[in-house]
Amino acid sequence: MPEPTTIMQEQPTHKVVFQPSGRNGLLPTGMTLLEAARRLGVGLEAVCGGRATCGKCLIYVETGTFPKYGLYSAADHLSPPEPDEQRLLEARGTPAGSRLACRARIQGDLLITVPPASRSQPQVIRKDATARTLELDPAIRCYPLTLASPVEEDGSEEERILEALRAQFGLEAVHFDPPALRELPHALREGRDALTVTVWQERAILRVEPGHRGQALGLAVDIGSTTLAAYLCDLTSGALLATVAAMNPQVTFGDDIMSRISHATEQPEGRRQLHEGVIAALNALAQEATGKLGLTPKAIVDCVLVGNSVMHHLALDLDPGSLGGTPFLPVVRKAVDVRAAELGLRLHPGARAHLLPLEAGFVGADNVAVLLAEAPHRQDALTLIIDVGTNGEIVLGNRERLLCTSAATGPALEGAQITHGMRAAPGAIERVRIDPRTLEVRFKVIGQEAWSDALPPEGVEARGICGSGIIEAVAELFTAGIIEASGRFDKHREHPRLIRAEGKPAFLLAEAAQTATGTPIVITQSDVRAIQLAKAALYVGARFLMQALGVKRVDRIVLAGAFGSLIDKQRAMTLGMIPDCDLEQVFSVGNAAGDGARIALLSRVKRREAADLARRVEHVTTSLEGDFQEQFVAALAFPHASDPFPHLPRAEADA
Amino acid sequence: MPEPTTIMQEQPTHKVVFQPSGRNGLLPTGMTLLEAARRLGVGLEAVCGGRATCGKCLIYVETGTFPKYGLYSAADHLSPPEPDEQRLLEARGTPAGSRLACRARIQGDLLITVPPASRSQPQVIRKDATARTLELDPAIRCYPLTLASPVEEDGSEEERILEALRAQFGLEAVHFDPPALRELPHALREGRDALTVTVWQERAILRVEPGHRGQALGLAVDIGSTTLAAYLCDLTSGALLATVAAMNPQVTFGDDIMSRISHATEQPEGRRQLHEGVIAALNALAQEATGKLGLTPKAIVDCVLVGNSVMHHLALDLDPGSLGGTPFLPVVRKAVDVRAAELGLRLHPGARAHLLPLEAGFVGADNVAVLLAEAPHRQDALTLIIDVGTNGEIVLGNRERLLCTSAATGPALEGAQITHGMRAAPGAIERVRIDPRTLEVRFKVIGQEAWSDALPPEGVEARGICGSGIIEAVAELFTAGIIEASGRFDKHREHPRLIRAEGKPAFLLAEAAQTATGTPIVITQSDVRAIQLAKAALYVGARFLMQALGVKRVDRIVLAGAFGSLIDKQRAMTLGMIPDCDLEQVFSVGNAAGDGARIALLSRVKRREAADLARRVEHVTTSLEGDFQEQFVAALAFPHASDPFPHLPRAEADA
Repeated sequence: MPEPTTIMQEQPTHKVVFQPSGRNGLLPTGMTLLEAARRLGVGLEAVCGGRATCGKCLIYVETGTFPKYGLYSAADHLSPPEPDEQRLLEARGTPAGSRLACRARIQGDLLITVPPASRSQPQVIRKDATARTLELDPAIRCYPLTLASPVEEDGSEEERILEALRAQFGLEAVHFDPPALRELPHALREGRDALTVTVWQERAILRVEPGHRGQALGLAVDIGSTTLAAYLCDLTSGALLATVAAMNPQVTFGDDIMSRISHATEQPEGRRQLHEGVIAALNALAQEATGKLGLTPKAIVDCVLVGNSVMHHLALDLDPGSLGGTPFLPVVRKAVDVRAAELGLRLHPGARAHLLPLEAGFVGADNVAVLLAEAPHRQDALTLIIDVGTNGEIVLGNRERLLCTSAATGPALEGAQITHGMRAAPGAIERVRIDPRTLEVRFKVIGQEAWSDALPPEGVEARGICGSGIIEAVAELFTAGIIEASGRFDKHREHPRLIRAEGKPAFLLAEAAQTATGTPIVITQSDVRAIQLAKAALYVGARFLMQALGVKRVDRIVLAGAFGSLIDKQRAMTLGMIPDCDLEQVFSVGNAAGDGARIALLSRVKRREAADLARRVEHVTTSLEGDFQEQFVAALAFPHASDPFPHLPRAEADA
Repeated sequence: MPEPTTIMQEQPTHKVVFQPSGRNGLLPTGMTLLEAARRLGVGLEAVCGGRATCGKCLIYVETGTFPKYGLYSAADHLSPPEPDEQRLLEARGTPAGSRLACRARIQGDLLITVPPASRSQPQVIRKDATARTLELDPAIRCYPLTLASPVEEDGSEEERILEALRAQFGLEAVHFDPPALRELPHALREGRDALTVTVWQERAILRVEPGHRGQALGLAVDIGSTTLAAYLCDLTSGALLATVAAMNPQVTFGDDIMSRISHATEQPEGRRQLHEGVIAALNALAQEATGKLGLTPKAIVDCVLVGNSVMHHLALDLDPGSLGGTPFLPVVRKAVDVRAAELGLRLHPGARAHLLPLEAGFVGADNVAVLLAEAPHRQDALTLIIDVGTNGEIVLGNRERLLCTSAATGPALEGAQITHGMRAAPGAIERVRIDPRTLEVRFKVIGQEAWSDALPPEGVEARGICGSGIIEAVAELFTAGIIEASGRFDKHREHPRLIRAEGKPAFLLAEAAQTATGTPIVITQSDVRAIQLAKAALYVGARFLMQALGVKRVDRIVLAGAFGSLIDKQRAMTLGMIPDCDLEQVFSVGNAAGDGARIALLSRVKRREAADLARRVEHVTTSLEGDFQEQFVAALAFPHASDPFPHLPRAEADA
C-alpha cells in the first residue's frame, strides 16, 4: 500500500500565489494554473475548456523574489508554451510573461497576476453576480478524517465514522443520509485510513469520499418566470466559479404566472409538465456550469433556489392553485429544506436544496433574496427597490419598516411578446441610441465589442432585441419626439426609418443588411404598448407603496433585474418607469435576486436573516385598492404628459 | 455509423418458445436458456446460480417442426453439454433431450418444455402470524382536523394545518414531508373543512387526506435468504389483515449469504440486481396483500423490515462486502428509519420504513425480531432459541444475559441442495412417517388435506420434498434403523424401498405413480449428508453458546423458522439438531422473526426495546474457537452415537 509520503515524493508541491486576491496554496508539479485557480477559489475565465482557443484565461507571471509571499517566481517555473498557445499569445500581441492558465503547468513557486479581463464575469446575460462581500458560513462543510484499522468492537462502519467525527472535530449528533451510507464502503476501500465526509448543518452526512479532498460546490439559482440564472460557487472559498443562464422552458405553457397557474391546475398533466420542465432546465444549467470546470453536477452538494411564489411552487411540484384566488395563500411559505433528488435534481445523490421563504401571495423567495442582497432594512435612507421581471416585485422601506407588492409587468421587458424580441443572448440588441435630429441609429449587439456604426453592416449580425434594448429604444424614440406622450407614433413626422408594419406605424431599428436573418428589425406600435403596460404596472406599484407608507418621495431607487445590460436608469426615468428621484441616487444593480440566492448559499446566518425578513415585510395588495384602474391608465402615458396620482403631490413637480 | 440492423446481423436472434406457458421471444445467439427464461418471465428454478450442481433447472428440448409456433427445434440448436453438465445428466438418468437451462446456450430456434419439477412455485408459509397480544403504540397515527375558512393572515396552507394540529391535538414541532405537502391542496379542495393528517412519531406529516377517515395500514416483512414473508396490519386496531409469502428472487444469484455477498461485490451490476430483485418482490407482496382487501399498496404508510445482515444491507442497497471478511463489520448496525420510496418501495409516497437494528456480523435484524417475539430477556428460565433457516441464528439466555451466534446451516433445511428438494410450495412433501418394521411410508403433501395412504396414487401428485419433510424423513429413517448413527445407509437391510441412486444407497419415498412428474422421489445418501451438515451447524452453535455461558443444560428450547410445517420437535431432537431438553419444554413457534417485525410495526416502545436488545446481546463467533472443526465433525453423527462435547457432561446422558 503506497504511503501518502511516497506520493508526496513523486509529486513535489510549489507555492502559488494569485494576485490581486492574494489566494495561495501548495500545489503539485504538473497541475495547470487553471486547475490551481479553481482549487484556490480564484475566479478565472475558461470558455474554451482548455483548448487554447479563447484566450480568456490569460494571466501574467511575475518575475523576482517576493519577500511578502516568501517565494521566488520566474517564467520558467511554468511549462514552456506549446505551439498553439504560442500562436494565440503572438496573435494577441500580449506582453512578456503572458500565459494561458489552461495550458501552463506548475514547475516551481509562482506569483501570478490575473488581469481584470480574465476574471470570471462570463455571462453575456447580465444575470452576473455582482462582486459583493459575502459572509462565508455555508450549510455544508467538509471534514477530513483519519481512521484507525477497523476492529469488531467498532460495531459498524457507520459508528467508526461518527466516532472519528466526534473525536477529531467535536461533532455530536450527526447522522448519515442514506446516499452517503451507500458511498461509505467504496470510500473506505479506496481511501483506507483517509476519508472526507461532507456534513450539512453539522447534522447530516450527505457524502463520503476517499482521501482528503473536500471540494464542495453549490449552485444558487434564480428561477424567473422567463429567465433562469445559475451561479456555481465554491462553498469552501466562496468563489464564484461559473455563471450560466437559460430560458425557463415553462414559457411554452404561458407567459406570465397567471397562465402558468391555469396550465398547472386545468391541464391533466399540466403541473407535472411545468415541474419537470423547469427541473430539466436546471439540470442542464448544472451540467453546463460544472462542465466549464471539467466537472459534472455530481460535484454539487448544496443549492439554493429562489423564485416568485408560482415558480417556487412549481419547482417543489406543489399545486399553485391557491395562489390564483383569494386569499392568495401559498401552500407553504417558510423556507423549505429538502433533498435535491426529491425535486428531480441530478446533483450529488445526497445534495440538499434550500428554498428561501416566500413573503406573500405573489411576492416570493426571489424578493427575499433581493432584500438579502440590497439590505434596505439596514439603512436609514428610504429605499425603493424595483425588481423588473415578468412578475415585478417592489419593496419600499428602511430599517423602520418594509412594504412589498407585486406588479403584473408581463414578459415584454424580458424580450417576449415583442415583435423582434428575444432573450438576452448573442445577437440581441441591448443598447440603442437615436439622434433626435437626424434619427440616425446606433446600437450594440450582445457578443460584439463595437457599436453598430463602427462596423460594416454585414459585421453587425443582429438577431433581435432584448429587454434592455427595448427600454432604451422606446425611451430614445420618446426623447426624439417620434413617439408622443400617449405612446402613439407622431403621424406628422416623415423619415425613411418611419415605416409601417402590419398596417401600423413602426420604426426601422436595424436594416436588413445589419441582421443575421436578412430581415429588418423594427419597433412596432404594439411593442410600444407592451412597454407602456409594463412600465405603468411597475410605476403604479411603486407609487402605491409610497402612498401606503405616506411618503412623497424616496431617498434611493434600486433597479434590479436580469434581462440584458444593466437597466439604463436615465432612460427608465424618461419612460416614467420609476418615480422621480435624484439620478445620483438611482442604482442599477443587475440580478439582485441571484446575488441574494448566492448569499444564502454561502451563509446560514443569512438564511436565518431571510426568514426574519420574510416575516417582517408587509404585503400591500394593489389590486384591492379602489382606484387602481384609473391610476394604471394614467400611468400608461410617458412622463410629464399627465400625473397618474393627481391626489398625491408628485415628488419632482412639487419641488 | 452502423445501423441497428447491422448489429442484428452480427448477433442473429432465434425464436424460443417455452412450454407449457407458451411464453416466447426473439433472443440472441449465445444467451443461456436460464437468462432467456428470465427475460420472458418463465419461472424456472435456479438454486445453484448456474454452477451445474443442483440440476433444478432441467428442461427438455423438443425436436421437430412445430407449425403452431412456426419453428423447427432440434437438440443441436443448443450448445453441446460440457463435461460437468453431462455428468449430472447421466447421474440422474434423465431422458434424451434433457439439458440444464443454466448451461445450454441458444444457437437456433427452440421449443423448450419446462417439467413441473423445474417450475418455480409460489411459496407457502405454513405458519400464519401467531395470535399474540401486541402492544399498540404505532409510530404512525391519524389526526382528524376541522378547519376554519382560510384568510390571508393564515400565511399559508401549511401553517393552517400546523396550527389546527396544535390547537386540536396539542401537537407542536410537526413538519410536513414533501409528499404530504403535495397532497395538501387536493385534500383541501376535496375535504374543505375536514381533513385527516397522518403523522409519524408526532413529528412528520406524511399524508393528508380529505374527510375524516384515517385508515392506516402497515406491512411487517421478514426478508429471509430463501423466503419472504409479509404481514399486513391495521395500525389503528393492530389487526392482522393478510399474510403473504414468496420466494426471495435473490436465490437465482446464489443460495446462501456468502454467495450473495460474492455476487453483490464481484459482479458489475450485482448489488443493483440483488437490491432491485428483493424490492420488486416486496412490492409484489404489498400488492398481493392489499389486493386481498380490495386496496392498493398506496394504503400502506409504514413498514418494518427484518432480515439477516446481508438481507438487511441488500434491502437498503448497501454494499455487503465488509460482512464477508474480518472484522465482519456491517455498514450500519443501529435501526434505520428511511422513506420507503428511498428503497424503491411503491407504497404511499410518504410511507416510512423502519429496519430493526443488527446484532453483529451475521446475526441480524431478524434475530432482534425473534428476541422481541420470544422475549427471553423477560424470563428467568434459561432459553435456547434456534431460528432455523439458510442462515441459522441462535440465542441463549434469560433476563441476566443473552448470547447469540450464527450458523451456516445452508439451504438444505429450506429444500434446496436436496435431490428432490423444493421450497414449501404446493406439491411439496411436508410430513413423513415410516413404519420401522414394514418400512411402509405415509406422507402429506402441501395442498392436500389427506395423507398419501388415504389417496389413490395418482391423486397424490407429489413434486418434491420441502424442509420440514426432509427433517421428518431423515429422522424416521434413523428411527427405523435404515440410517446408522454415522448417517450411512445400513448395508445389511434389504427392502424394495432401499434402492440405489447415483451409485449409492437411497430410499424410495414416493413412487413414480404418486408424483406429478412420473419420476420417483427419493432420499439419497447425499441428502442425508446435507441434513447432517445443517443440523450439526445448529447443534454446535447451540452447544457453543452453552459452553460460553457455562451451563450444562437449558430450561427451554424454542424452534423458530418458516419453511413448511412447524418443525417437529420430537424429530428435531431425534436427529440431534437440538441439545437434549425436557420435550415438554421444547416449543415450535413458526416464524418468530415475522412476529417480531409485526410487534415492532405496532409499537414504538418495542422499537426502543429492540435497540436495547441489539446492544445487549453478546455475540460469540464460533469459528474463532479452537476446537470448532472437531466438535463439528463429532456433531455430524445422529445422537447417542458419540458425544460431540466430551469435555462437557451431556445433559441427558449424565442424568
